[in-house]
Amino acid sequence: MATDDDKKDMCSTVHVHNPHLDALKDDILYHFNLGTSTHDLQAMFGDVKFVCVGGSPRRMKLFIEYIAGELSFEDQKSEFPNICAGTDRYAMYKVGPVLSVSHGMGIPSISIMLHELIKLLHHAQCTDVTIMRIGTSGGLGLEPGTVVVTKESVDASFLPKFEQVILGKTVVRSTDLDQCLADELLQCSKDLGLFDTVIGKTMCTMDFYEGQARLDGAFCSYSEKDKQEYLAKAYQSGVRNIEMESSVFAAMCKLSGLRAAVVCVTLLDRHKGDQLTSSHEVLHNYQQRPQILVAHFIKKMLNASGQS
Amino acid sequence: MATDDDKKDMCSTVHVHNPHLDALKDDILYHFNLGTSTHDLQAMFGDVKFVCVGGSPRRMKLFIEYIAGELSFEDQKSEFPNICAGTDRYAMYKVGPVLSVSHGMGIPSISIMLHELIKLLHHAQCTDVTIMRIGTSGGLGLEPGTVVVTKESVDASFLPKFEQVILGKTVVRSTDLDQCLADELLQCSKDLGLFDTVIGKTMCTMDFYEGQARLDGAFCSYSEKDKQEYLAKAYQSGVRNIEMESSVFAAMCKLSGLRAAVVCVTLLDRHKGDQLTSSHEVLHNYQQRPQILVAHFIKKMLNASGQS
Repeated sequence: MATDDDKKDMCSTVHVHNPHLDALKDDILYHFNLGTSTHDLQAMFGDVKFVCVGGSPRRMKLFIEYIAGELSFEDQKSEFPNICAGTDRYAMYKVGPVLSVSHGMGIPSISIMLHELIKLLHHAQCTDVTIMRIGTSGGLGLEPGTVVVTKESVDASFLPKFEQVILGKTVVRSTDLDQCLADELLQCSKDLGLFDTVIGKTMCTMDFYEGQARLDGAFCSYSEKDKQEYLAKAYQSGVRNIEMESSVFAAMCKLSGLRAAVVCVTLLDRHKGDQLTSSHEVLHNYQQRPQILVAHFIKKMLNASGQS
Repeated sequence: MATDDDKKDMCSTVHVHNPHLDALKDDILYHFNLGTSTHDLQAMFGDVKFVCVGGSPRRMKLFIEYIAGELSFEDQKSEFPNICAGTDRYAMYKVGPVLSVSHGMGIPSISIMLHELIKLLHHAQCTDVTIMRIGTSGGLGLEPGTVVVTKESVDASFLPKFEQVILGKTVVRSTDLDQCLADELLQCSKDLGLFDTVIGKTMCTMDFYEGQARLDGAFCSYSEKDKQEYLAKAYQSGVRNIEMESSVFAAMCKLSGLRAAVVCVTLLDRHKGDQLTSSHEVLHNYQQRPQILVAHFIKKMLNASGQS
């Protein structure tokens, strides 16, 4: 008969790659306002199987309320306290096996959060964790509101790599994502039949304005023609949407053995404009789509494993 | 006699470098939830002379309350509504000629904010604006709590440049800051005599853990010796503190003609450790120091111009 330890060996754990961590008496997850000596991380987070992350703290609170209702784990009107209330760097909410965490905007902001999240999941001895970024993006050649599940995250030169500077030297990391998970999410969208979802490459940039060839920033040294040519090249290379976090998200999740997906709705078609002129209601509706898709996927997984 | 237009010509305005902006009927500052057709930006912001920015929205709210009391512009107990309440990307507060804006963590996050802030100040026809980043940082060879006024922002190779990717190509921008302003801020610290302030180079990195040679991230492929050698090289090149926003802040402010300074307190000496083990009270006290220094400077400037 399999013991608990045997079972753990068969499961996929969350890897840290840092020999120095064992020497730490206490590990302070500063930007979460959590720590190994102040919190029982295993008791708090040991049952986490799904982590959903997104830029906006408000959106991640709405997501936990939404999925709590969908999973019928708790009364939909329950209060979900912010687990990181002691800091305003990130917000974190939990219901059952689902953790919802905000990450701010851009690669450095999500990278700080992921370092501390990966350590948190490691300290909590979580197993078989799936992590999904649910976000917003600019689309290329897609009807606004279309959801893109990322096949591969590419940089501003359309190459599938993330450059991490360590001790002043650049290290190149792979931005591979889990293709089976992407296919499962696409199937979930077909099951739902509520909105269009495609699988495509996602371009991850360091800047929202000049970095994404927008014409409406404080600075712009190129023409509309230059912009369109650049976006056309991106489209030809398979890019279907543009955002600012997917490359480091893919790289760090791969290093730590987390099954990862990026699911972003497109708020506009960048071939046709730069500014978000849709009404608040329309944009709000679009922003719910990655949540609906991912919630459906989580429900399906929990039903299949008999946990819901 | 000088007309109002003549006077405006003698003042320093906020430059945008974007010929496309004039063609926009409405300019939506999406991440502020403000726009030229929905808000009278000149009426709301035309009198702004000082902009203070920092990572944390809570800290920037505390700052506006603090400076309101210092300037006696309003009852210290007044409520200061968040001007960007319609979004949770950034928070913005105003009292008299002082604007306080949060920018999140990292270069991409502050860069989005600065694009929209520069356009806001331009649309509002503000003149003679001084902008100061008041933040936290890791120190090198300094007693924790020491404030560093940045002489020059350098990258992870200790070079004074910011690399902006535009249409997939890298453009190098200068990270010069206003040396007279830095000297004036140092003098303010001497006037106050409350804490140590130094002028030094600030290293701006893309990552808090591996990017700053920390040993306590989820990943670490180098030794304590490698870390110390890297930090020693940084110190030898004149670096006195490390943070994550100064380079793009310096570059964008220079391009737009804003008089700019970076004033960050050091929360720890990175030669001696990586984790923030000081008590909440001590860290809170440290975080107030850039606010106290900058508030003193603003008061001095307003007194000199007879506006307070």
